[in-house]
Amino acid sequence: MAQATIGNSEFDRDTAVTPREPGVHDAELSSAWTIIHAVNGGYLLAMAGRALGEVLPHSDPFTVTAHYLTASRPGPARIRTEVVRTGRTLSTGQASLTQLDENGAEVERLRVVAGYGDLGALPDDVRTTAKPPAMPPFEECLGARHADDEVGALLGATEIAGRLDVRLDPATAGWARGKPSGNGEMRAWFRLADGRDADPLSLLLAVDALPPTAFEMGISGWVPTVELTAHIRSRPAPGPLRVAITTRNLAGGFLEEDAEVWDSRDRLVAQSRQLARAQLG
Amino acid sequence: MAQATIGNSEFDRDTAVTPREPGVHDAELSSAWTIIHAVNGGYLLAMAGRALGEVLPHSDPFTVTAHYLTASRPGPARIRTEVVRTGRTLSTGQASLTQLDENGAEVERLRVVAGYGDLGALPDDVRTTAKPPAMPPFEECLGARHADDEVGALLGATEIAGRLDVRLDPATAGWARGKPSGNGEMRAWFRLADGRDADPLSLLLAVDALPPTAFEMGISGWVPTVELTAHIRSRPAPGPLRVAITTRNLAGGFLEEDAEVWDSRDRLVAQSRQLARAQLG
Repeated sequence: MAQATIGNSEFDRDTAVTPREPGVHDAELSSAWTIIHAVNGGYLLAMAGRALGEVLPHSDPFTVTAHYLTASRPGPARIRTEVVRTGRTLSTGQASLTQLDENGAEVERLRVVAGYGDLGALPDDVRTTAKPPAMPPFEECLGARHADDEVGALLGATEIAGRLDVRLDPATAGWARGKPSGNGEMRAWFRLADGRDADPLSLLLAVDALPPTAFEMGISGWVPTVELTAHIRSRPAPGPLRVAITTRNLAGGFLEEDAEVWDSRDRLVAQSRQLARAQLG
Repeated sequence: MAQATIGNSEFDRDTAVTPREPGVHDAELSSAWTIIHAVNGGYLLAMAGRALGEVLPHSDPFTVTAHYLTASRPGPARIRTEVVRTGRTLSTGQASLTQLDENGAEVERLRVVAGYGDLGALPDDVRTTAKPPAMPPFEECLGARHADDEVGALLGATEIAGRLDVRLDPATAGWARGKPSGNGEMRAWFRLADGRDADPLSLLLAVDALPPTAFEMGISGWVPTVELTAHIRSRPAPGPLRVAITTRNLAGGFLEEDAEVWDSRDRLVAQSRQLARAQLG
């Protein structure tokens, strides 16, 4: 398969939105981006983000928040957008992704509010104390391509595995062998399976594409996202990304998942935090 | 002054919202919660959160996101709310706080989307690796009450100082003496000046009530909030709170501020992250 490019890839095709009327886009939620039957939350976020990029004067997501209201299903969807404010350097928009239920009633799946700008227009200054995660090189991490491997088999068991090339740090893959570390950490190399390089939109996918940290904390149940906020801090350089997710506080049946995404230049290109529900056994 | 109580305090009076029509509340932005002429973002968040608590079936904010669109001014405001979804354990709402400009046109100040629930109904399980910040006892930290002190003078120089009792960890107060540490850290004890104990609504104020971490990074300019998301994780116990704010990544003229709020039981009661603009000198 020839390497896909930004604008011509599975991700670009499957997040396409079609203008229907001013501020309203039609879309098709692809079954290729599902985990069991749930459509991946990062894929939905990227699709809503793409619609907002169409209606706002700025093209790059800076801060995007999504509240996940009901479970999305593969099939047709509609995205209604509102331009909340337009400014010189930042503009703000809102998006609502809906689907029709079995009775033909429109049901909202997620509500998004986002600030957009131009990452290319930002000054180059960087003063950071954040360090890229310490993890083995890409080739030494565990991916769904390793069909003979328990981890590979588990990672490969979901539809979305065919679209992503996720290589887990072995130190955070104990859950797949029935030996979770007990630490709320998950680290992996991440790229799209067809080789498409990362851009600000695909970073919205990357922050929610790893197995939940809860698995390494010994929780095997589903961990549905209530709310996720992603900050896109820099345009990612070509090459695989490193994603590190941390959970520090599991309490009252809820936990936070903080994700950092690093590019091949060792730039922190995205930070995200989600509030998720833990189904405690 | 007799100790104020939850429901009968400056904070409760100054965040009051009055029903005007279904889903619409009138409010008055008090000049008592301003820094120079800007109305404090946490105060605005708490007011919007209070309006949402009035219209949603659940009373406690779980996750609240605000996008700050234009600068609020002391005076009348209107809060328009929308019930996005109601569920058994969580409900979702949206709020828009507006004011009239000099031409009588309604201008939106902030847009809020929030998930509400019942903190009292959550199980007691806590599995956390988060630790309360190491800082000196309340009495040894620096507050606006110390009028003879440079830090006190600076903290006391804003209107809001009369409403809050913030005691800075001396290790993060170097900025006030022209000797910023260079670290993106700010720590303080926090309580309301009239002694009102904390509740989930006042935690929305606490996450945005300290001096910006940028001051300790040697940036003296204004650091306007673009977006702030707060997760309320537990109902706070009585007594002063500890607030620890950290910035790891200042890049391209933007920085994140992560806040943790701890109560007297050493419970992590709130986590927040904001994306702010740094006006680099």
